Amino acid sequence: MAIRSISHNDEESFKVPLNGPNFAVVYMKFTLTKTDPESRARAGELHTDHGVISTPIFMPVGTAGTVKAVHQKELKTEIGAEIILGNTYHLYLRPGLDLIEKAGGLHKFINWDGPILTDSGGYQVYSLSDIRKIKEEGVKFQSHIDGSRHLFTPENVMDIQRTIGADIIMAFDECTPYPCDYKYAARSLEMTHRWLKRCCKRFDETESKYGYQQNLFPIVQGSTYTDLRKRSAEFVAKQDRVGNAIGGLSVGEPAEEMYAMTDVVTQILPKDKPRYLMGVGTPANILQSIALGIDMFDCVMPTRNARNGMLFTSEGFINIRNAKWKDDLSPIDLNCPATTSHTHSKAYLRHLMISKEMLGSQIATLHNLSFYLWLTKEARKHIIEGDFHSWKNQMVKKVSTRL
Amino acid sequence: MAIRSISHNDEESFKVPLNGPNFAVVYMKFTLTKTDPESRARAGELHTDHGVISTPIFMPVGTAGTVKAVHQKELKTEIGAEIILGNTYHLYLRPGLDLIEKAGGLHKFINWDGPILTDSGGYQVYSLSDIRKIKEEGVKFQSHIDGSRHLFTPENVMDIQRTIGADIIMAFDECTPYPCDYKYAARSLEMTHRWLKRCCKRFDETESKYGYQQNLFPIVQGSTYTDLRKRSAEFVAKQDRVGNAIGGLSVGEPAEEMYAMTDVVTQILPKDKPRYLMGVGTPANILQSIALGIDMFDCVMPTRNARNGMLFTSEGFINIRNAKWKDDLSPIDLNCPATTSHTHSKAYLRHLMISKEMLGSQIATLHNLSFYLWLTKEARKHIIEGDFHSWKNQMVKKVSTRL
Repeated sequence: MAIRSISHNDEESFKVPLNGPNFAVVYMKFTLTKTDPESRARAGELHTDHGVISTPIFMPVGTAGTVKAVHQKELKTEIGAEIILGNTYHLYLRPGLDLIEKAGGLHKFINWDGPILTDSGGYQVYSLSDIRKIKEEGVKFQSHIDGSRHLFTPENVMDIQRTIGADIIMAFDECTPYPCDYKYAARSLEMTHRWLKRCCKRFDETESKYGYQQNLFPIVQGSTYTDLRKRSAEFVAKQDRVGNAIGGLSVGEPAEEMYAMTDVVTQILPKDKPRYLMGVGTPANILQSIALGIDMFDCVMPTRNARNGMLFTSEGFINIRNAKWKDDLSPIDLNCPATTSHTHSKAYLRHLMISKEMLGSQIATLHNLSFYLWLTKEARKHIIEGDFHSWKNQMVKKVSTRL
Repeated sequence: MAIRSISHNDEESFKVPLNGPNFAVVYMKFTLTKTDPESRARAGELHTDHGVISTPIFMPVGTAGTVKAVHQKELKTEIGAEIILGNTYHLYLRPGLDLIEKAGGLHKFINWDGPILTDSGGYQVYSLSDIRKIKEEGVKFQSHIDGSRHLFTPENVMDIQRTIGADIIMAFDECTPYPCDYKYAARSLEMTHRWLKRCCKRFDETESKYGYQQNLFPIVQGSTYTDLRKRSAEFVAKQDRVGNAIGGLSVGEPAEEMYAMTDVVTQILPKDKPRYLMGVGTPANILQSIALGIDMFDCVMPTRNARNGMLFTSEGFINIRNAKWKDDLSPIDLNCPATTSHTHSKAYLRHLMISKEMLGSQIATLHNLSFYLWLTKEARKHIIEGDFHSWKNQMVKKVSTRL
């Protein structure tokens, strides 16, 4: 395997393997800037063709080609987003691949020039589609929009993600529910591993359609079983891809189980590659998982909860619809970078939410995402400054307080 | 009556009467920059304590303290709004006067430092409230939100608007429906005139609560009857307030009747004061009414229709939900100042609207309002350049075309 090394001053630099048929190509580079002495937290930099991502990072979810209620420009100016997510299942069904390809890929279609990650569609097939049949070949399902029938296989999900054109794409897996009996979890895991081999093969046989690099992340599964998680992490590590993900958590299990599984897996996944904990979570979940060595997060919580009036702030979480905030003319959160969080009062935002005004969801979403990005950036700062552990313990208490 | 004159270079300047108990105060100044030789169109400047408004102007409607789907910052940077509307009926019911007063007025509550105009609540009482009884004293009505009972009188509507604190406030009137029989229209008109006297008296006996000027506009009524409109315009003109409005139009009558009534009224209302045609209208309505001497407009059409996918563009109007736009990757409208109208394609906006994504309403609203402001600014430019009449006739055709 061809290897090319890139080194930077003052940074620990890792050699990145060159996958795929085009050996002139250097795939995503990940550099570790600092590792926390008191935990497994890391600060790093992930280089993609659409920009550098400073880790740990939270990735706002842009399901159908839009982070709900947020303008693309605001993702940069108000939120400080460095990478956003798209959902393969949603984008495949609507607007469909033809239009995305005609536009020159998802970045151009939605007018976002930063990095994008797409999930593999697996999670949505299991949670959203009306009918689904999982077989060795892949998953047959009916669209939740119009009932039309479709088949996702490891191969065509790679092809679909090639057409969508995200910088980071995910392997097609089965995301087991919670609880899940051991036998099912073990059988599912073996299939997910066979699917992973098929994903890697198809990915390596195909090329990016739009002239920039795409990078495939495999996903560790294994439900809440330590031995399955270990086996899966070892299998995934052996594939030697440029980054790795942990799936099948944050699906209803107690937080302690999630941390235990994350702990097991991050001890096995290679240190020199970014680790992405899928679908996690609350601010406290994120801080605890950073301490376990996770670099990347995504979750609908900040956006979805914002639309219901739940705000995450640097002092704790609040339900802005409560009468308690009716006359509170203090700013939403002065620590939060979003301009609207400084300039609008809690009472005004409450009025908008109670009146079901769209601007309420807009301001609350900007706030929550801005807070999540602030939180991961603060974590990074404290990892670099060397006081992450004590800061994290204080912060977990704060963000878990209901105001 | 005390008079103070302010003159500006190259501008026709009018002396503005000093109403109210405080004779040291100079109320709103209106200067006519240019009058079109081939129509009655005028370009002017309206000076308020929150800024100068260049007329003709369109005023985005901010019903409950928010222009739906638009951030206050975007009103300036994307739309070029110079003044926005608030609705007394809505604001009075929710969030209520106590909170608005505690915040220091509507400007501070919603964080908008430009001029604001509030309507008198009359129109909403007739169109929204569940039960209403119109008597000489005022109107009893039940809230559409919680059924609570309220009374609006000319006096308390002045007080309410003092508390809300808009720069321009409207007299309390009865807005007759269309069609309306002559007898009812005549009787209603007389009551509206008596109410106007009561509004003026209360307004002149009270003062602004927040240290800046407020200005009262009376409203011409008279349904679609020329003699009633004339009588009302003469009555209103005699009150000698700093600006005047025309109400009771755009309530279902044919456009020709609306223009005929506007024509009658603008020939009577004083030239040296701004004229506001309430609730109007389509882009063509606005252009034709500018030619009849109207300076100010408001309408929910650009915002409401945006949320349903109807876009007004410089080449005509379009229903972005139509399959016709499915693959159209051209920008929404390059003539329109809103950044999102240049950077997003019709196909992307259609995808968002079809997917019921909030961002669709956000982009469409920015677009439509930006187009309306562009249109009135273009009208002003052409009035000043002296070719308004021919430009207007061309433009009316364009904006009336379905694309």
